[in-house]
Amino acid sequence: MITASICTIGDEILIGQIVDTNSSYISKALNSIGVKVRYMFSIGDDRNEIINNLSNCLKETDIVIVTGGLGPTKDDITKDALAALSGATGYYQSPQQLAIVKRILSARKIELLDVNLDQASVPDSCKVIPNELGTAPCMVFNFSEDKFGHKAVLYSLPGVPYEAERLLDAVVESIKQNFTLERICHRTILTFGIAESVLAKQIEAWEDALPKWLHLAYLPNATLGVRLRLSCFDSELPGRIESIDEQISKLKDILGDSIYGSDADSLQSILPHLLQGPPQASYQETLAVAESCTGGRLSELITSVAGCSAYYKGSITAYANEVKINVLGVDADIIKKHGAVSQQCAEAMAKATTLTMDSDYAIATTGIAGPGGGSKEKPVGTCWIAAAHRDRVTGEIEVISKQIFSMSSRSVNVQRFAANALNLLRLLIKRKLF
Amino acid sequence: MITASICTIGDEILIGQIVDTNSSYISKALNSIGVKVRYMFSIGDDRNEIINNLSNCLKETDIVIVTGGLGPTKDDITKDALAALSGATGYYQSPQQLAIVKRILSARKIELLDVNLDQASVPDSCKVIPNELGTAPCMVFNFSEDKFGHKAVLYSLPGVPYEAERLLDAVVESIKQNFTLERICHRTILTFGIAESVLAKQIEAWEDALPKWLHLAYLPNATLGVRLRLSCFDSELPGRIESIDEQISKLKDILGDSIYGSDADSLQSILPHLLQGPPQASYQETLAVAESCTGGRLSELITSVAGCSAYYKGSITAYANEVKINVLGVDADIIKKHGAVSQQCAEAMAKATTLTMDSDYAIATTGIAGPGGGSKEKPVGTCWIAAAHRDRVTGEIEVISKQIFSMSSRSVNVQRFAANALNLLRLLIKRKLF
Repeated sequence: MITASICTIGDEILIGQIVDTNSSYISKALNSIGVKVRYMFSIGDDRNEIINNLSNCLKETDIVIVTGGLGPTKDDITKDALAALSGATGYYQSPQQLAIVKRILSARKIELLDVNLDQASVPDSCKVIPNELGTAPCMVFNFSEDKFGHKAVLYSLPGVPYEAERLLDAVVESIKQNFTLERICHRTILTFGIAESVLAKQIEAWEDALPKWLHLAYLPNATLGVRLRLSCFDSELPGRIESIDEQISKLKDILGDSIYGSDADSLQSILPHLLQGPPQASYQETLAVAESCTGGRLSELITSVAGCSAYYKGSITAYANEVKINVLGVDADIIKKHGAVSQQCAEAMAKATTLTMDSDYAIATTGIAGPGGGSKEKPVGTCWIAAAHRDRVTGEIEVISKQIFSMSSRSVNVQRFAANALNLLRLLIKRKLF
Repeated sequence: MITASICTIGDEILIGQIVDTNSSYISKALNSIGVKVRYMFSIGDDRNEIINNLSNCLKETDIVIVTGGLGPTKDDITKDALAALSGATGYYQSPQQLAIVKRILSARKIELLDVNLDQASVPDSCKVIPNELGTAPCMVFNFSEDKFGHKAVLYSLPGVPYEAERLLDAVVESIKQNFTLERICHRTILTFGIAESVLAKQIEAWEDALPKWLHLAYLPNATLGVRLRLSCFDSELPGRIESIDEQISKLKDILGDSIYGSDADSLQSILPHLLQGPPQASYQETLAVAESCTGGRLSELITSVAGCSAYYKGSITAYANEVKINVLGVDADIIKKHGAVSQQCAEAMAKATTLTMDSDYAIATTGIAGPGGGSKEKPVGTCWIAAAHRDRVTGEIEVISKQIFSMSSRSVNVQRFAANALNLLRLLIKRKLF
């Protein structure tokens, strides 16, 4: 099996200033094409450390992916270390990257300095994959068997996450061309609203009857729910894909509405399908949002889906009670009688939203994200969520609501509230539609 | 200088299923007490890999901190590997941890099984720091000079982030008792709105004149701007702290308003100070937001600060033009004449927000986050941002605006637009106040 190591370079990681998210993203991509990641490690901007550690990795694994240390400033020395490691005799300027550097700086109206031009310059021992989103290109170093005892390839990517992510597609293509990979097939079924242990019990018999070559993993996540990943090596063997499909079909029968999607879906990415259906569907519904404790997170999730303007009207973050009353249109008496964090207020917010924002559906959240606030009756982590549908013919508004409780940090609580609100909307739409 | 390595154990990290946040947290804590982290790495649940890699770390660094692999399931083998590495002759049960295990399971109403009792059992070659929040304790292994050529200590922590975090205080205390530590001092100055290369040029002379013992690092980030970190070892030497303060003071003179804060500040965390000032300040101002392309991100950033309800009224995400007109109160003619993505619309949104939401200040964003949409005149990545201040006495509304251009992914574009909007607000407030 082809193996890889992932190395992050930068003092800022070793002092805990930034969390390394690149390695996780890269290892996920490598795993999906059947490459086994053996090591992930971070070292500082130190020439000897870089050379020694990368040499070891090139001995131990077939592929080494390096991120970081390619900035224009003096403390970034990855490129020089790689030149030494690969026995470069000099540098050359990549014309493609140079054109990109000039274009980017000109678009940002930044003066072109020598340090920027240097970004397009690379050791003569490497090939370049141009970086369309930034100034430092991806460098590809091929090592023959003589050097490390086996054929090895090192890819050096910039540390900026979105630049590294974009370049990774080309890196994956290059790996596929350089190595003969085993066929691996991953299929992921997404569930929401059901605890991992409860889920495990529900699908116990199904899990026990899975064929030996099919591996099941539980991947719990606060915003995505519990994902069930089925992995199969040698997926090209006859009948395997059909067999996986059959298992998934059985799983769907067991779990029903707890399943909201598959693979890369999310509770927000399925909204186009739920609200607008296939082209020429008889329903073309719209959505709006009212948020209190989630503070904008719910709207951000919905608008993270490109093209959402087809169904999304917008949101009101009614952080102050006066905004709930004066802008959103909640009856002041409801807040006075039941408090802002109440089932009544959540339902009133969802109902008012369909009218104020002129939408078919609406979701609302009101709760206490913490760390401060709360009371004995309504402790930190309490949240009421509501989903409403307005019938444009009768004017009738149907609303459902649910209490959520989350005992994590402010930011995790907000994420969990928002995800649960999207799930409540999904269940309401399914009930209306099907 | 005392050095450390941090090792995370678990297959789930190597397949990219979870992002390792423990290492970042631990390295921050170690740095703050003057321990230099040389390596951070992740390996799988493989006995030989664990033993080999930890042996290397114990040779190369004084302190090794291990997280993960201590769960009750079969694939968690860290404890056995540590027993072998440290030459344990058997296991013993920690009475303190056993009591905690019993208490936790009883509180969660979970039946006490043998696997749970095993959690309190540790190799006889280690000491235990009890884990109040979970079933697996922290294990401390002391190695004499004979074994790795120098005195070394290995701490094994559970992988659950809040358990590891809580135990870290005791680990830090233990490190202070075991080693004589140098004093280290980090100071970070935060800038926004100035490109890294331009910044480097502006402070070149200042940087070149820095004393040798003071190390400068550039840490660029889409939402935090370019952070400048000054690091000083031996900060207890006479005059060093004063000298750092002096350098920072010079830096402030050079960069002026480009600096928005220091250390752990962010553009949103400084809002309480900017809007409400110190207690009993003569100004107590409020803020509201209107978002189009940022879709809720700006409001989310503002509400990520606990206690923001003191100054934050809320937001309107006016995704649809009709919401801009009917809910937010933008003149329909402005959109008709100039389009929704225009300086005029951004300014009208900010102005309208101060009235609709009854706030002193307002920020607005309108743009094209991509990947679709846009035109030749207004390409994807174009955004107009505006900040407004309403004088409650005269009723006059002052507004400033700026065009931003970002050529990244949808999500990074949105982050950059939102950060720039917060920065524009900061500059407006500073102009009004000082």
